Amino acid sequence: MHQLSPEMRACIDECLRCYQTCFGTAMTHCLEQGGKHVEPGHFRLMIACAEICKTAAGFMLMNSPHHKHACRECAEICEECARSCEQVGDMQDCIEACRRCAESCRRMAA
Amino acid sequence: MHQLSPEMRACIDECLRCYQTCFGTAMTHCLEQGGKHVEPGHFRLMIACAEICKTAAGFMLMNSPHHKHACRECAEICEECARSCEQVGDMQDCIEACRRCAESCRRMAA
Amino acid sequence: MHQLSPEMRACIDECLRCYQTCFGTAMTHCLEQGGKHVEPGHFRLMIACAEICKTAAGFMLMNSPHHKHACRECAEICEECARSCEQVGDMQDCIEACRRCAESCRRMAA
Amino acid sequence: MHQLSPEMRACIDECLRCYQTCFGTAMTHCLEQGGKHVEPGHFRLMIACAEICKTAAGFMLMNSPHHKHACRECAEICEECARSCEQVGDMQDCIEACRRCAESCRRMAA
Repeated sequence: MHQLSPEMRACIDECLRCYQTCFGTAMTHCLEQGGKHVEPGHFRLMIACAEICKTAAGFMLMNSPHHKHACRECAEICEECARSCEQVGDMQDCIEACRRCAESCRRMAA
Repeated sequence: MHQLSPEMRACIDECLRCYQTCFGTAMTHCLEQGGKHVEPGHFRLMIACAEICKTAAGFMLMNSPHHKHACRECAEICEECARSCEQVGDMQDCIEACRRCAESCRRMAA
Repeated sequence: MHQLSPEMRACIDECLRCYQTCFGTAMTHCLEQGGKHVEPGHFRLMIACAEICKTAAGFMLMNSPHHKHACRECAEICEECARSCEQVGDMQDCIEACRRCAESCRRMAA
Repeated sequence: MHQLSPEMRACIDECLRCYQTCFGTAMTHCLEQGGKHVEPGHFRLMIACAEICKTAAGFMLMNSPHHKHACRECAEICEECARSCEQVGDMQDCIEACRRCAESCRRMAA
């Protein structure tokens, strides 16, 4: 841990924050609201976003050179998830977590 | 997320902090130090600890009633990991993260 | 891998089979059917079941002594998931995968 | 599950097989052998390979359109892991599992 750059540590934090927000919101708020919140395309994106965030965080924690590809993919899925959340509505926490994570991941992938 | 109690949110944070510390330390510091740091019993405990921390966090994020069992198991593995880290030496961050996580998980499991 | 007992290898297979069936069915069939299939209690149980199956498999692959507790918890969640699937209906694959996994996990936990 | 193409189901099986082989071998055989088997670059690759295999399998089980990128990345890491295993020696099961998974993933990514 202590060997990782401050930028990478910040990105790990954003990824795990976004994982928590997307997974937690999907499994509580979305399931309880129903309707558009459990539309297959949207719900899958929430879970895919949570999953790639965990994977990207894991690759950075390992200091694996493959973290760049994982972060690039994570940024793409986060942006797509943020757009989907905007259309569903009532998903402000997810939108913010996804946008912050995407920005941080793009920097790591550069 | 917003529906979870402050205690549960704090425990999720401790679990994900302990995951980061154990997994990151195992995959960088321990592998690079070698010797006692990669002794099978110790190294497996570090990875098992990281894994159960992720699982316990996931169950709490879902607000699943099964989080109590996951947290009880997490507390046990974290304590065992902390003791193993004490014997290996030079693992202060892990010891602290494991002890804090174990204490928080015991409260959730009660 | 080659060091694991045949019983443990069989249990790993059942756990990963149950993970595939529960996670895959939840994220395709259940989301597309809607209604009872996305009722929060049922859907969370499907995802919790998939998650504990992965965790139990991981602990066995590590040959961790903690696999017994993970397998006991896995057996309980699988049985509960099978009962929930029976009430929802049209979930025969999940019921079978959960029951087989539960039986195998109970033997490992004994 | 029943909606997935036979090719995708086969690729999910290869990914979960490769996950089992790489993770299980790393955590038992490699840790017990020590020496080159726990050299940081090699060991991290084994764990990164196991991780991306789980992620790719998860994306396919969800029938997410993002599975193509995950499978492409999985194929690259599997190939790199197979080459590392060849250099370490005494890792035939991993080499075979990685090569089969890489080939299957390349087809899914195409």
